[in-house]
Amino acid sequence: MQSQADGYHHDIGAALQLLLSAGGKRLRPTITLLIGQMLNAPIDRLITLASAIELLHTATLVHDDLIDGSLLRRGMPTLNSQWSPGATVLTGDFLFSCAAKLAAETESIPVIKLFTHTLTVIVNGEVTQLLSGHNCITREMYYQRIYAKTASLIETAARSAALIAPTSETTVENMRAFGYEIGMGFQIVDDILDFTGEEATLGKPVGSDLRQGLFTLPTIIFNELYPENPAIQTLIDGSRSLSDEQVVQLVNDIRHSIAIELSFKEANQFVDRGLSSLLTQPNKKERQALEELAKFIIERKT
Amino acid sequence: MQSQADGYHHDIGAALQLLLSAGGKRLRPTITLLIGQMLNAPIDRLITLASAIELLHTATLVHDDLIDGSLLRRGMPTLNSQWSPGATVLTGDFLFSCAAKLAAETESIPVIKLFTHTLTVIVNGEVTQLLSGHNCITREMYYQRIYAKTASLIETAARSAALIAPTSETTVENMRAFGYEIGMGFQIVDDILDFTGEEATLGKPVGSDLRQGLFTLPTIIFNELYPENPAIQTLIDGSRSLSDEQVVQLVNDIRHSIAIELSFKEANQFVDRGLSSLLTQPNKKERQALEELAKFIIERKT
Repeated sequence: MQSQADGYHHDIGAALQLLLSAGGKRLRPTITLLIGQMLNAPIDRLITLASAIELLHTATLVHDDLIDGSLLRRGMPTLNSQWSPGATVLTGDFLFSCAAKLAAETESIPVIKLFTHTLTVIVNGEVTQLLSGHNCITREMYYQRIYAKTASLIETAARSAALIAPTSETTVENMRAFGYEIGMGFQIVDDILDFTGEEATLGKPVGSDLRQGLFTLPTIIFNELYPENPAIQTLIDGSRSLSDEQVVQLVNDIRHSIAIELSFKEANQFVDRGLSSLLTQPNKKERQALEELAKFIIERKT
Repeated sequence: MQSQADGYHHDIGAALQLLLSAGGKRLRPTITLLIGQMLNAPIDRLITLASAIELLHTATLVHDDLIDGSLLRRGMPTLNSQWSPGATVLTGDFLFSCAAKLAAETESIPVIKLFTHTLTVIVNGEVTQLLSGHNCITREMYYQRIYAKTASLIETAARSAALIAPTSETTVENMRAFGYEIGMGFQIVDDILDFTGEEATLGKPVGSDLRQGLFTLPTIIFNELYPENPAIQTLIDGSRSLSDEQVVQLVNDIRHSIAIELSFKEANQFVDRGLSSLLTQPNKKERQALEELAKFIIERKT
């Protein structure tokens, strides 16, 4: 990934180094590499594909953080907190172009088509969230949003690895399903941790989604259980905003409600369905690693 | 191009309609279509490719106008003059994703690779201009800048049409050269018109490049001819800025100097070299149209 900046403006290389050194879980490329190796895909094309996917993810984060005005990501200052908006936009564009270049280097038309389609889905999801306001109050809207935001790229990370292998259509479909289900579960757990995590581990205040007016699964389930809660109703009808104290109270109410357990149950169902898509595969070490990765997604604290 | 927004957020469709209705010269897709038809490329893939190239161009303009804070483009309000920065960034990203999707639909790996490489060159050029300051004072730096900014995509519009055809390597190289030379000539004429055009036709004040501190070929040649001009020297050493009157005076001095004629001579040399790349082609109506297009590039007033 770092070598993508070679030969271009040195500040681009510096920005890329900064972004890559912050690390992150590298969930998407890990899934690509494990599935690809499980299916005997050629390692060089697999590495190219995994890099394309992680750089695409990084590019979307750069523009997201700029739009949201976020100052920290993965415990490091965001690019937009240090650079001008213009330089940040262009760095994101540069990362998009690198991701597209690496995707093209896989020389697989199906993979390239899938990759460009996924980018459209992700950006359309961001546009929808930005322009339609935050409050999705039904599970259906929530699932659409987290599919666009998170699961679509994890699905593509898994499916494209199978396409590269190459392998049977059934296996491609199973791997796609694994990525989709794991991706949905991953984002639900993320949204739960926003309520239950420790501020120090999260690197942001507890309940930050709700503070920004964003409804996630715990809030939606809490609303289904307690439709008369006045704070929730105020947020839904949007007629006036809540005081800081009222938001903290609501976050606490949700945090200590059964909505958390019920959200975990949903996440578990997704991840279990994902795991069942692996069952047709021979019990190789990569399959075991994917199973452990699925377990990590549910059990992680950050 | 318009149908690319079908099925996505309706504001994306509205933005795309606004951007497309402003028109523009459509130089790049015209070159793709003419070269492709001259070389008997399949028309459906050619239209897909031409749309991909024009949408990529449009995407870069959306981000450029945001970064520069431009309020008008093609006589119409820019997206950033009406929308939030976030919505503008995402609309640009959406257009990039549509362009990439259409490029993938050509199903030609060489075309896709060329396309993604060109995006990297364009973005790197913008980064370099933004971060390294404006003042390229040598012809070499100027030519590098206008290649990245303009000629690279026109070169790709021409070369990729030949790749789609398909045709011999020699013809691909001749078409690439045509696009490159025409593209360089086109940008030089643009930069001349910034001095010699009518304010009403240009839709911006005369000498707007220089007002923004941007040195283009007429200024560079003027500086070669009159290295002792105090206004130019002040701009180059950057120690202090010029008053409005001093800038107007300098713009006028350049406008009425031989630097304009010498710049036209350079533009003509590029375009003539471009025309000579067409000579190996049979004298079909598409070749004649390309020759007229080259003439238009030199003679246009806007």
